Amino acid sequence: MNYIKKYVEENKDRFLDELFGLLRIPSISSIADHKPDMRKCAEYWKEQILKAGADKAEVMETEGHPVVYGEKMIDPSAPTVLVYAHYDVMPVDPIELWNTKPFEPVVKDGKIWARGADDDKGQGFMHAKAFELMLKTNNLPCNVKFMIEGEEEVGSPNLGKWLDQNKEMLKADIILVSDTSLLGKDEPSITTGLRGLAYVEVEVTGPNADLHSGLFGGAVANPINILNKLIASLHDKNNHITIPGFYDDVMDVDPAERAEMNKAPFSKDEYKKALDIKKVWGEKGYTTLERVGIRPTLDVNGIWGGYIGEGAKTVLPSKAYAKISMRLVPNQEHNKIAELFAKHFEAIAPPYVKVKVKPLHGGQGYVSPTDSPAYLAASKAMEDTFGKKPIPYRSGGSIPIISTFEEKLGIKSILMGFGLSSDAIHSPNENYPLEQFFKGIETIPLFYKYFAEIMKK
Amino acid sequence: MNYIKKYVEENKDRFLDELFGLLRIPSISSIADHKPDMRKCAEYWKEQILKAGADKAEVMETEGHPVVYGEKMIDPSAPTVLVYAHYDVMPVDPIELWNTKPFEPVVKDGKIWARGADDDKGQGFMHAKAFELMLKTNNLPCNVKFMIEGEEEVGSPNLGKWLDQNKEMLKADIILVSDTSLLGKDEPSITTGLRGLAYVEVEVTGPNADLHSGLFGGAVANPINILNKLIASLHDKNNHITIPGFYDDVMDVDPAERAEMNKAPFSKDEYKKALDIKKVWGEKGYTTLERVGIRPTLDVNGIWGGYIGEGAKTVLPSKAYAKISMRLVPNQEHNKIAELFAKHFEAIAPPYVKVKVKPLHGGQGYVSPTDSPAYLAASKAMEDTFGKKPIPYRSGGSIPIISTFEEKLGIKSILMGFGLSSDAIHSPNENYPLEQFFKGIETIPLFYKYFAEIMKK
Repeated sequence: MNYIKKYVEENKDRFLDELFGLLRIPSISSIADHKPDMRKCAEYWKEQILKAGADKAEVMETEGHPVVYGEKMIDPSAPTVLVYAHYDVMPVDPIELWNTKPFEPVVKDGKIWARGADDDKGQGFMHAKAFELMLKTNNLPCNVKFMIEGEEEVGSPNLGKWLDQNKEMLKADIILVSDTSLLGKDEPSITTGLRGLAYVEVEVTGPNADLHSGLFGGAVANPINILNKLIASLHDKNNHITIPGFYDDVMDVDPAERAEMNKAPFSKDEYKKALDIKKVWGEKGYTTLERVGIRPTLDVNGIWGGYIGEGAKTVLPSKAYAKISMRLVPNQEHNKIAELFAKHFEAIAPPYVKVKVKPLHGGQGYVSPTDSPAYLAASKAMEDTFGKKPIPYRSGGSIPIISTFEEKLGIKSILMGFGLSSDAIHSPNENYPLEQFFKGIETIPLFYKYFAEIMKK
Repeated sequence: MNYIKKYVEENKDRFLDELFGLLRIPSISSIADHKPDMRKCAEYWKEQILKAGADKAEVMETEGHPVVYGEKMIDPSAPTVLVYAHYDVMPVDPIELWNTKPFEPVVKDGKIWARGADDDKGQGFMHAKAFELMLKTNNLPCNVKFMIEGEEEVGSPNLGKWLDQNKEMLKADIILVSDTSLLGKDEPSITTGLRGLAYVEVEVTGPNADLHSGLFGGAVANPINILNKLIASLHDKNNHITIPGFYDDVMDVDPAERAEMNKAPFSKDEYKKALDIKKVWGEKGYTTLERVGIRPTLDVNGIWGGYIGEGAKTVLPSKAYAKISMRLVPNQEHNKIAELFAKHFEAIAPPYVKVKVKPLHGGQGYVSPTDSPAYLAASKAMEDTFGKKPIPYRSGGSIPIISTFEEKLGIKSILMGFGLSSDAIHSPNENYPLEQFFKGIETIPLFYKYFAEIMKK
């Protein structure tokens, strides 16, 4: 595919200049002071899409930050690719840990350093440039639509409504997203699953006031001890979760896909060494990759109660709290799971205490089949540029908007990300290797090519 | 005993004036700024002891706040009573909850309101006035020694050394202490037991850094979940403590004493209502009074780990902590128990985590026999003034210095306190009913009288 390499080679510096223009806009969606930057950033994206050759592009209002929409319709009978990316970034604190200024991008040691360099300006912008490349070299085989949102880092609170309002306009055969990572620089991989999330807070109340543990200890139930017992009972000795009905909707992954998944490069020794643990933990009958990829989990994310200052205080506290989250696999419904949790937790609470369960947050899991046209196209495209067939890989993390796309638009997504785990997304010194940026731009046109070919069959 | 009532009646107002002088000195031992007040308070006590008629009294130095010592030797062949009290008080925060100024004592609704009104200026000063009464009315049948310390509220860190240095001077037949409470205003009772304490802090470390609970949850042990399992395992289904050897040194209390103990006025319904609990909790086979009185316990006093702020954060934390204390009964050695705890906790920790146990604090339990001359004297004295035989009562609390007296000086203590549970010691609006103050002054001379009589036999 000589035309691809040639075009990238000839336009490299301009591509970077244009990306740097995007990176210089401090589009932090969670900080109200940056509202003007959000609009500026949306306008920049709109201009870039138009300059690349779109028929139209516009900044569309929501109740929050706007969404950029653009499209190039080449042929109503050709397949349509809907590109999703986000132009907002995370805050930069702690700023003192940055080696460069977060909104003054620089290239050093073969990497772009800036907030958003990977997540998701760098990865998103690859799609603008690949689109330009395909158009300018007369190699665009699909209709293209862009939706670039500005609230991904705050949970996309207004995107669902916008999707509902623009269902017709957004019609497409596949949603193409680059907002995930590879298993390694030379380990091409495609994220085929994301976990859902049900996050609750529990409160256990014993006596109606903090008591002296000498005068009451042993005669009045201590809510911390009770909370510990309750939480301890949520896993059995095989580390299965004991909530009745919890696994009811979990679909078994077939042995072939499990075998494929376990081919991912993974060294248990290196994993243990990196985390400084003697032994990995988890549900009996599953490997570490399976435990984070295809199995639901339950973790205490925070716990507190009683005296937590310096030294000793002999209090028998009135209350104890915990934040507990369950990562869910596709087909588990997060509201249902939160309800099952609450019902179970209330049922097992002994009569010495009162318990309250408050759902805090939730999202659905997602799974992308490995035999779909989009997966096959992405796989072939990556095989061409990486020289190796990519591994399907279920990430333990959650991108709730992906399941919302499926629910609202009825369109599957293909998660073809080029990030590396060393890119420090959400952290100081975020970076994105030049090699990944350009490899992404080179791989995307191949995806379109193969996707159009497979869809034609 | 008409001379007692008469003397109290004639001197009531002066007694209160003198107590108020003591209460006005803000002798907070834990706050360095109050160092001059501590000395002022010690000097005040010295003057009061001398004025009451002691042969000598002095303010004796320690490495911390001084101890006041005074004595009146009437006859080498008479028994000697060593009075212990403390002149230091707790801090007054939260000051905004006080209805009056903590160091400006007032009488209202039949109670003295001030920091230290009960603990232990009010209760301690009864002994100065009772001593004066016995001397002035020619009714002192024993030698009397006073030791009034200034560091009780900070754990008496320097008193042990002072006891060692003054063993000869402190020789006595009994130590008389009023620093405890009655079961009720009309329920005379004598504290015959105090629990010891072993207080530890535990740290559980999982991975070497906080992790993303989506990417690692289910594959790496969560130290909070593990800590919860470990703590949950410390009680079995009968709420016995599972630490091997924990009960080895616990002495069984004979059925007669248990029966006596259970005669104490106690309404389980009122207890539950006051604490707003549906059910009391505790070790199988024991009543609520026995659970706090004669049985050792284990309580989590504080727990923390992970994200404890507002909302949801999906962290799999590196560390989790708990403060755990065990109340001990007489004969359980607190250092040994802390070691047993550490050994057990380390032994049950699974290989996924590292655990550390740090002893924070400890003290021995104490038990006073109910057939000793001092107990019998106190019992008769209270029976005279209350019109009812007092109940022997083992408190769940700890006054570590009492076991130190036994260990260092070889002298038992008699805990004849007149406080009420409504006195709000250590809290805002501390108070002491006038009735309790004067009843104490009237009871103490009777104790001396009966003690001398019984010792003579």
